[in-house]
Amino acid sequence: MNRPIRWIAPWTLEVLDQTRLPFAVEWVSLRTADHCRSAIVTMQVRGAPLIGAVGAFGLAFALREIADASGAQPPSGGRRAASAVAGMPANLDALVAWLASARPTAVNLAWAVTRVADVVRTVPASQRADVAWAEAVRIAEEDAAGNAAIGSHGAELLRPLVTPRRPVHLLTHCNAGWLATAGHGTALAPIYALHDAGVPVHVWVDETRPRNQGAALTAWELAAAGVPHTVIADNAGGLLLMRGEVDAVIVGADRVAANGDVANKVGTYLKALAAQAHGVPCYVACPVSTIDPATPSGDAIEIEERDASEVAFVTGATDDGAVTRVRVVPHGTPTANPAFDLTPATLVTALITELGVVPATAEGIRALMTGAAR
Amino acid sequence: MNRPIRWIAPWTLEVLDQTRLPFAVEWVSLRTADHCRSAIVTMQVRGAPLIGAVGAFGLAFALREIADASGAQPPSGGRRAASAVAGMPANLDALVAWLASARPTAVNLAWAVTRVADVVRTVPASQRADVAWAEAVRIAEEDAAGNAAIGSHGAELLRPLVTPRRPVHLLTHCNAGWLATAGHGTALAPIYALHDAGVPVHVWVDETRPRNQGAALTAWELAAAGVPHTVIADNAGGLLLMRGEVDAVIVGADRVAANGDVANKVGTYLKALAAQAHGVPCYVACPVSTIDPATPSGDAIEIEERDASEVAFVTGATDDGAVTRVRVVPHGTPTANPAFDLTPATLVTALITELGVVPATAEGIRALMTGAAR
Repeated sequence: MNRPIRWIAPWTLEVLDQTRLPFAVEWVSLRTADHCRSAIVTMQVRGAPLIGAVGAFGLAFALREIADASGAQPPSGGRRAASAVAGMPANLDALVAWLASARPTAVNLAWAVTRVADVVRTVPASQRADVAWAEAVRIAEEDAAGNAAIGSHGAELLRPLVTPRRPVHLLTHCNAGWLATAGHGTALAPIYALHDAGVPVHVWVDETRPRNQGAALTAWELAAAGVPHTVIADNAGGLLLMRGEVDAVIVGADRVAANGDVANKVGTYLKALAAQAHGVPCYVACPVSTIDPATPSGDAIEIEERDASEVAFVTGATDDGAVTRVRVVPHGTPTANPAFDLTPATLVTALITELGVVPATAEGIRALMTGAAR
Repeated sequence: MNRPIRWIAPWTLEVLDQTRLPFAVEWVSLRTADHCRSAIVTMQVRGAPLIGAVGAFGLAFALREIADASGAQPPSGGRRAASAVAGMPANLDALVAWLASARPTAVNLAWAVTRVADVVRTVPASQRADVAWAEAVRIAEEDAAGNAAIGSHGAELLRPLVTPRRPVHLLTHCNAGWLATAGHGTALAPIYALHDAGVPVHVWVDETRPRNQGAALTAWELAAAGVPHTVIADNAGGLLLMRGEVDAVIVGADRVAANGDVANKVGTYLKALAAQAHGVPCYVACPVSTIDPATPSGDAIEIEERDASEVAFVTGATDDGAVTRVRVVPHGTPTANPAFDLTPATLVTALITELGVVPATAEGIRALMTGAAR
């Protein structure tokens, strides 16, 4: 299984630096809570499930740093990071809030960090770090296993679109592949499952401005797996849907509200509107941890506004292979950069989760949460 | 008046090289028919009305080159270009087809070149070039005057959106400003008219991948005119419309069919869908020459597929000011690049033309064509 995160031994965590892909494949070591939080903020790791896992490991590191600093656990071999505790809150709830604030829209981050905090709350301080680490590993492993189940459920759902004459054409936005998770992916998991089963598939990949996760990450993943694909400008999907060249839209999610509204990478909503206009299904694939029963509807979801420079500059490789950024607007041009948008539940044909496929409705989600989903 | 084209004296034509903007302001001389056609193909000039005017001048150059080559008009002072006639058809209808094929989607190009051809058809060969030049000048002047009228009609239409509390927020896609025309612009003309009248306006500018005409050209134009604006990723407009941050969408057109369907820069359709979903008007501003009564509906419009490298590469300025292109997809990634899409007439609130504002319907268009529009 391909994974963008690896825990080689306790307290050794590495992640694939996604800001360098597809031009360089570089693993970076995360050795402190602050490293973990920064990797999430700078999007070295991204994708709702993956930032959940990294946040969970971040809390484990934080607890170790606190234990070291307080002397409850004797420091050994350079373990006490110079930055330990500085700038980082000391109490468990404040730590959860500090880590969860790294990115506000995806609920998986808050969910995973809270889950670790709840597990360690009743554990003696000296053992908290180790218990937290074990729980973070469990979260990551569960995510990967859940993604595999999403792949099976999704493949089953997409099978009726298979015709003998031509490949199934799927359109995806952003990256919801294995790079976005602890393994397998969400929206791409059913695509990989179909491809592995010998079903001809072709993926239209939205480049996904401003950060180009489609062009940089999804295209790279699909090429590595040998899945036929074509990168398009985000603008092109409406025409392709109108022409009948898309059999289904399939995307991931950063948060699903209790009523089925979906927050996902900005631009998702436009594709969902176009899919509906042409009677094409629009599927959202996500682990149950992405669904937040405490968020009544999309209106309640905070949309992260990211740095305006992400719109003003584009990073890529020059003809001689150097990776550089270029400014694409005139000097001093104001830009705005909402990172997500909201797709109303009515535009979502179904949610594909590890527990099964349900309608994007309050009833569907209740069935999932109570274990009544198929 | 700002213009991207200037005819300094007969047979001296210069255009602003739009592939260099906003990083450099460079005028290039077009001295042959082939220069004119190439400038259209490479998008040194772009925008439906402007390529119409350049095509018209191109036919004048072609007729002069043919006259020079045939000796009907004695060559003088290096006038006989080495490339004259080579690769260029010799008969009038073939010339029209050759020039019109430079870009297939916008109807203005075929319209303008045909208009010049029809004028010279009964003129003696020795006078054709001069008559054609005069007609090309007339086409350009009429376009600029028409755009000014579009500005007035459009400003009147937008005035009801003005409230005392906040600026009118308009969203535009691609560039339909003075750079796209022989002067004033189409979609931007009403915005300039409002701004000049002291009405506070703010423009959301879609960057308009893959060629970034919004980020590069519209932002540059609006900044030069002092019109407040913000560049956004093409993906962001759906969220802005959902949030009520857009009072109207206003775009240009490359061709309007007899039933009111609109071909415009790819991505327009997605914004029109979102505008309709939120009850926001979507206006299409264009000269009557953009409306093609011979095209029954959008289905009949050929959508230009441009070079795939336009999606794979982005041009911009590096930190030290050098203009360069960077590859944004992995090596060898397949890309597709439809340059336009179709917005069904039902999504278009009204057409703003130099002859008045009409519904985007067969009746509205007939009224325009028969002079019955207000």
